[in-house]
Amino acid sequence: MDYAAATPVDERVFSSMKKYLSVEYGNPGSIHSMGVRAKMAVEKSRKEIATVLSCRPREIVFTSGGTEGDNLAIFGVTDAWREDHPGKNGHIIVSAIEHKAVLSLAKELERRGFEITYLPVSKDGIVNLLDLRKALNQNTVLVSIMYANNEIGTVQPIKEVAKVIRHFRNSKIQSPKSKVFPYFHTDACQAPGALNLNVTQLGVDLMTISGAKIYGPKGVGALYVKADIKITSQIYGGGQEFGLRSGTESVAYIVGLARALVLAEEERDKESQRITALRNYFIKKLEDIFPEVELNGSVATRLPNNLNVYFPGILGEQLVIELDAIGVEVSVGSACHANGTRGSHVIWAISQDSDRINGSVRFTLGRGTSKKDADFVLKNLRKIIDRLTYSLVRV
Amino acid sequence: MDYAAATPVDERVFSSMKKYLSVEYGNPGSIHSMGVRAKMAVEKSRKEIATVLSCRPREIVFTSGGTEGDNLAIFGVTDAWREDHPGKNGHIIVSAIEHKAVLSLAKELERRGFEITYLPVSKDGIVNLLDLRKALNQNTVLVSIMYANNEIGTVQPIKEVAKVIRHFRNSKIQSPKSKVFPYFHTDACQAPGALNLNVTQLGVDLMTISGAKIYGPKGVGALYVKADIKITSQIYGGGQEFGLRSGTESVAYIVGLARALVLAEEERDKESQRITALRNYFIKKLEDIFPEVELNGSVATRLPNNLNVYFPGILGEQLVIELDAIGVEVSVGSACHANGTRGSHVIWAISQDSDRINGSVRFTLGRGTSKKDADFVLKNLRKIIDRLTYSLVRV
Repeated sequence: MDYAAATPVDERVFSSMKKYLSVEYGNPGSIHSMGVRAKMAVEKSRKEIATVLSCRPREIVFTSGGTEGDNLAIFGVTDAWREDHPGKNGHIIVSAIEHKAVLSLAKELERRGFEITYLPVSKDGIVNLLDLRKALNQNTVLVSIMYANNEIGTVQPIKEVAKVIRHFRNSKIQSPKSKVFPYFHTDACQAPGALNLNVTQLGVDLMTISGAKIYGPKGVGALYVKADIKITSQIYGGGQEFGLRSGTESVAYIVGLARALVLAEEERDKESQRITALRNYFIKKLEDIFPEVELNGSVATRLPNNLNVYFPGILGEQLVIELDAIGVEVSVGSACHANGTRGSHVIWAISQDSDRINGSVRFTLGRGTSKKDADFVLKNLRKIIDRLTYSLVRV
Repeated sequence: MDYAAATPVDERVFSSMKKYLSVEYGNPGSIHSMGVRAKMAVEKSRKEIATVLSCRPREIVFTSGGTEGDNLAIFGVTDAWREDHPGKNGHIIVSAIEHKAVLSLAKELERRGFEITYLPVSKDGIVNLLDLRKALNQNTVLVSIMYANNEIGTVQPIKEVAKVIRHFRNSKIQSPKSKVFPYFHTDACQAPGALNLNVTQLGVDLMTISGAKIYGPKGVGALYVKADIKITSQIYGGGQEFGLRSGTESVAYIVGLARALVLAEEERDKESQRITALRNYFIKKLEDIFPEVELNGSVATRLPNNLNVYFPGILGEQLVIELDAIGVEVSVGSACHANGTRGSHVIWAISQDSDRINGSVRFTLGRGTSKKDADFVLKNLRKIIDRLTYSLVRV
C-alpha cells in the first residue's frame, strides 16, 4: 500500500523494453540501420507520449526522471530569463506543498538572488486562486504548482491556475515580450492513470512526468516544454533531445516510459473507478476500527488511490514498522528524499500541527491491491491499533 | 563492429537487474523493509564498484550516464570553485580529443568567463606532458583528460598526467588551501574491460564511468569523487547520493552497472588478449585488401578493440552504408552526438587533414565478435573496396 512511493514495472511495459536491452541495443546517434532503429524507437515513444499529452512530439524532452524534469523546467526557465535580464533578480511562485525536488530548487534559486513566494494551502490542501493572483508581479518568471500531491493526494485546480496566470499576462502593460511571463510549470508525476493530462486543456507551459510512479521504470521521465518557450539546457554534451538534454538516449527506458503512460491513460477510467470504490471501502472500515481517524486533505479533489490519515494518539512511524512486520508497506511523508526522518512539510502546511505530522500515515493503493489485500490490512490494523492504544492508556 | 558506440546488455547483467524491476521495486527512500532492501541493493552495487576502482563506497556517485558524470565533475568542481573565489575567472585544461560531452562543457565554461586550454595531441593521438606542464597556471582549477579515446582508441598516460599535476600543486607558493588545485578528472567511459581502473594507482581525483559501453544498460553511470573534493550538486531535490545527485535511485540500472563493471574487470585480461589477437589479424588482412590503409592513432597505446583506419580515396560514410547493407555496423567519428554529420574533431586533431576525416572508418570489436565475423567483414570489404576504387578510377 505504498504505490505513491514506487510501482513495479508492469509486465506489458517490461515486454516492450526488453528487446532494446538485448537485440536492438543500437545508439540512436549511429547512422547505420541499427542506430536508426534505436532512433525510431525513441521517436515513436515521443509520439506516443505527445498523443497522451495532446502536444507535438517536438515538445517532449526525455529525462532521467521526475527530479531531473523539475530541474530542467525550473532552472531551465530561470537561467534563460537571467540571460535576457542581466543583473535583475526574478521572482517565482511555488506552493508550500510541492515535492522536495521543487522546494529544493526554489531554495537554491533564493540563494542565487531570486525572490520566492510559497503559496499557502487551505486545510484541505488546495491553493487559493486569490492568493496566487496577489502574489503575481511584474518580475514573476515562473509559477510551479504540482498537479496532484504525492503525500496527501490533493489535486490542484490546474486549469484555474492557468487561467489566472493567463489573465495576468494579458493585463501586463509592458512590452509584448514581457507578456509571455510567467510560465506555468506543473509537476505531474503522480497524475497519470488518475487525471487528465491534456496540456492544452490544462493550459500549462511545462509539465514533468516520471516513469517511477506509473508502473514504468525508475530512472526515466519526460518534460513537456511548450513550443517557443525559452529554456536553457542543464546537461551539456552531444546535443541530444533538441539540444535540451545531452547524453546517449536511454532507449529501453524511454520505450518503457511511453508504454507505461499509454497504459495508464487507456485504463484510467476503469482503474480509477475500481480504486475509488476500494478506497472508500477502506476508509469506512478504518473508521469502524478507529473512529477518531481523520483524512488529511480534501476528500473531493483527491487522487483515487490516496488515503493519508491522521490517527490521533498513535505514532505513524510505529504503524509503518508494525505493518512492515507483516509484509504491508505504507509510509509517513514521502519516500522521495534521502533523509526520511524529517517531518512532513505537507501535513504542516495544512495543519501547523506537529501531532498530526507524527500521527499520520499514507496508504496508497495500486493495480496490485485487491479487496482481499484491503481486508488483510484492516484486520491487522485493528489488532495493531488495539495494542498501541491499550499501551497508550496504560502509560 | 561498433561496440564503442553501443553494447548489448550482457545476459548475466540482465539477470541481476530483472528482479529490481518486478519483485523488488521498492524506493530506497522508504523506511519499510522493501525500501531497505532496495537501498541495500544500491549500497551493495556502490561497494562492488568501489572495489573495482579501489576507492571507498562513499566516493561513488550514481548518475544517469557518462554525459551526466562529466557534467557533475566539471560543472561541480568549477561551480564550487567560483563560490569560493567570487569575481574571479578560473582556468581549465582539456585535451583537444575529449568526448563531445567534455568539449561542450568547456565551451559553456568559456562562455561563463573561464579560460580554456585545449591541449593538442601528437600524430599518434597522445597528449604531451610538457605541453600540459606549460599550460598549468595559478588559476587552473581542473584538468580533464580522457583515459581512452572513443574514436581512435588511444590511451592517455593518465598516471604521468597525474604526476605532473601533483608536482605542480606541491610547487605552489600560495596558501595550503590553493595546493589542492587543479583537480584531475578523467572520462573513463571506454576504459573498463581493457584498462586498469584503480584510481589510487592512476592518481585521478574524479573519474566518469558509464554502463552503456560495458555491456551494461544505457542511462546509468557513476562518478568517482575523491573524498574531501569540494563539488556542487547539479541536480537539486531529495538529496540522494550524499546530496550530490538528487532523484529516486534507478535501482535496477545501478545493480546492472555494478554487475557489468565487475564482469568487465574479471574478464579483462582474457578478453583483451583475445580481442588484441583478433584485431591484429583483422588489420593484417585489411592491409592485404587495401595496402594504402593507415591506422589512425598510436598502435602501441591503444584500446585492444579499436581499429580506426584511413582508406585514402574512399569515403568513410560510403563504407558505413555499404557495410550496413550487409548487416555490419561500423562508424565514422563517434555516435555520441545528435548531429552525426560534422567531421571528426579527433581525426582533425591528429592530422589537420580533411581527406583523412572523410576517409576514416572506426571498427570496434567486442564480446560478440568472432574470427568468423571478422572474415565475413573482410570478405565483403574486399568486394566493396574493389567496387569503390574501380569506380574512382573510372571517374
